[in-house]
Amino acid sequence: MSSSKPAVVIDLKFQRREIDAALSHAFRGRKVMLAADKDQDLSSARYAVVWKPDRDLFLRAANLQVLFSGGAGVDHILTIPDLPPIPIVRFVDESLTTRMSEWVVLQCLSHLRQAPAYLRQQREHLWRELPQPEAKDVTVGIMGLGVLGRDSAAKLKMMGFNVIGWSRRAKDIEDIDTFDNSGLDDFLSRTDILVGLLPLTPDTRALFNAGLFRKLRRGGALGGPVFINAGRGGSQVERDLLEALGNGTLRGASLDVFEVEPLPADSPFWRLENVIITPHAASATDVRALLRHVEQQIDRYETNQPMQHVVDRTVGY
Amino acid sequence: MSSSKPAVVIDLKFQRREIDAALSHAFRGRKVMLAADKDQDLSSARYAVVWKPDRDLFLRAANLQVLFSGGAGVDHILTIPDLPPIPIVRFVDESLTTRMSEWVVLQCLSHLRQAPAYLRQQREHLWRELPQPEAKDVTVGIMGLGVLGRDSAAKLKMMGFNVIGWSRRAKDIEDIDTFDNSGLDDFLSRTDILVGLLPLTPDTRALFNAGLFRKLRRGGALGGPVFINAGRGGSQVERDLLEALGNGTLRGASLDVFEVEPLPADSPFWRLENVIITPHAASATDVRALLRHVEQQIDRYETNQPMQHVVDRTVGY
Repeated sequence: MSSSKPAVVIDLKFQRREIDAALSHAFRGRKVMLAADKDQDLSSARYAVVWKPDRDLFLRAANLQVLFSGGAGVDHILTIPDLPPIPIVRFVDESLTTRMSEWVVLQCLSHLRQAPAYLRQQREHLWRELPQPEAKDVTVGIMGLGVLGRDSAAKLKMMGFNVIGWSRRAKDIEDIDTFDNSGLDDFLSRTDILVGLLPLTPDTRALFNAGLFRKLRRGGALGGPVFINAGRGGSQVERDLLEALGNGTLRGASLDVFEVEPLPADSPFWRLENVIITPHAASATDVRALLRHVEQQIDRYETNQPMQHVVDRTVGY
Repeated sequence: MSSSKPAVVIDLKFQRREIDAALSHAFRGRKVMLAADKDQDLSSARYAVVWKPDRDLFLRAANLQVLFSGGAGVDHILTIPDLPPIPIVRFVDESLTTRMSEWVVLQCLSHLRQAPAYLRQQREHLWRELPQPEAKDVTVGIMGLGVLGRDSAAKLKMMGFNVIGWSRRAKDIEDIDTFDNSGLDDFLSRTDILVGLLPLTPDTRALFNAGLFRKLRRGGALGGPVFINAGRGGSQVERDLLEALGNGTLRGASLDVFEVEPLPADSPFWRLENVIITPHAASATDVRALLRHVEQQIDRYETNQPMQHVVDRTVGY
């Protein structure tokens, strides 16, 4: 494995078997070290591919030049003390995007087509058609208009929903009304299904709270607003969310992320019939695709081309 | 309501309130009669709008010139004895098409993203990510390539699925491999998720039987084939379907239609965890849209233009 190409260290808290399988086809001609091997000297590593890295990684690998995130989010890196001031590259990939849009469209259709209510009827052996609103009368408001948000928006639009979008900084998207920070209340007042695809930053922490839920559109075609979150659990205030689901401020929810993960077995969320829970599985990283992406970006770096998807630390994504 | 325009009789077995609301905005200047009014003389009616019409309708309304079906299917009409030899017009409408595609995409995504398994985990308060196949490795085979099948195909394709199609007579659809009668076995051997959108005709009755289920692709990315039916219950042999679901020939199913509807409360289908049941609600007729469509076609008829979506009785749709 030794060669003249700069070495890479891997610290991915994914399934070991999947990592090994992907590594067997990656980084040809480059030394690969695993942070899990505690006797390994990591001082020669120039690149690190990390997901929830060990706290001591940057002490052991003191000569890193680039950090690659194992997922679309980088909050798992930015919260580490003494993070070296080197470029951080996010993982953006077609498979990751496709999977996220699958999950978002599945959740929006599940609430539109009243899947929880029909499931309850199925359990009761009850054959009863429910009045069915049309997708064009339901507005999905997407918060976060990066690669994931824009792909979801296009697919929801094609399914017939009315789609609007919000991002911190204004963005222009064809056929979709967009709002920025100053238009948040207006955006919320038009939204029947709120989809959160936001990174976790100081600005987005605890953003989905009681005050925000109350600003969503009342009296829309679904009979009440729905909250869908596939961003980060740290953006939602779960006490407020439970209360909003209990008192009818929200009619339903789909949650892939939580303040504490794994969601504790005694959490009241598990028992709510109008809440669909998945275990942070909306868009799981395919490790082979991740390593292909890292190799492409290392190639750009070593041939003096600008890397793509480099994090802006001043905004946190 | 009396006028010189030829009269129309309504015999729709839908909710009375919905029919009344839609009629209050339709057929301006034309006499409208209800078949439910048994004292009404229907002999002056020239048009009938029907869904599961009374057996004596064509005796009472003996001078009809055109029959309009209240839904996309016409098996509820063609099975009536002594049906007059007049044109029958099917209901084709954007809202009907959009709703059907919503339901089909929802079901395909539910099985791809393992919604039944995650739901079981939710009931057990269990946080565990499952290995997730990619949509591009899953082939959805659609049987029936009319307006509904083609719209579903385009939307499934856009969600990332590999999509193929089958119809009795060969059809060309951009970017989608299609098969006709002679290619049925080939089509089935490539199909992971079979979507039935077929009319009920002598050719399609009992088509979805044990022999057909066994021809679906084994060892695909989902771990076993899935059967989805939103056509007609008469096309499926439910004894075979239950056996196939029980012995692993099928991994799951989504069923909107049944041999007997309403599905009896003691049917074993209700209890199957990998089966998603909806009460013939995949694409409910919007009565206002139906009457708009009927008015448009009557207008064509009365101005000597050819009507659209006229049924070919030799094939049954």
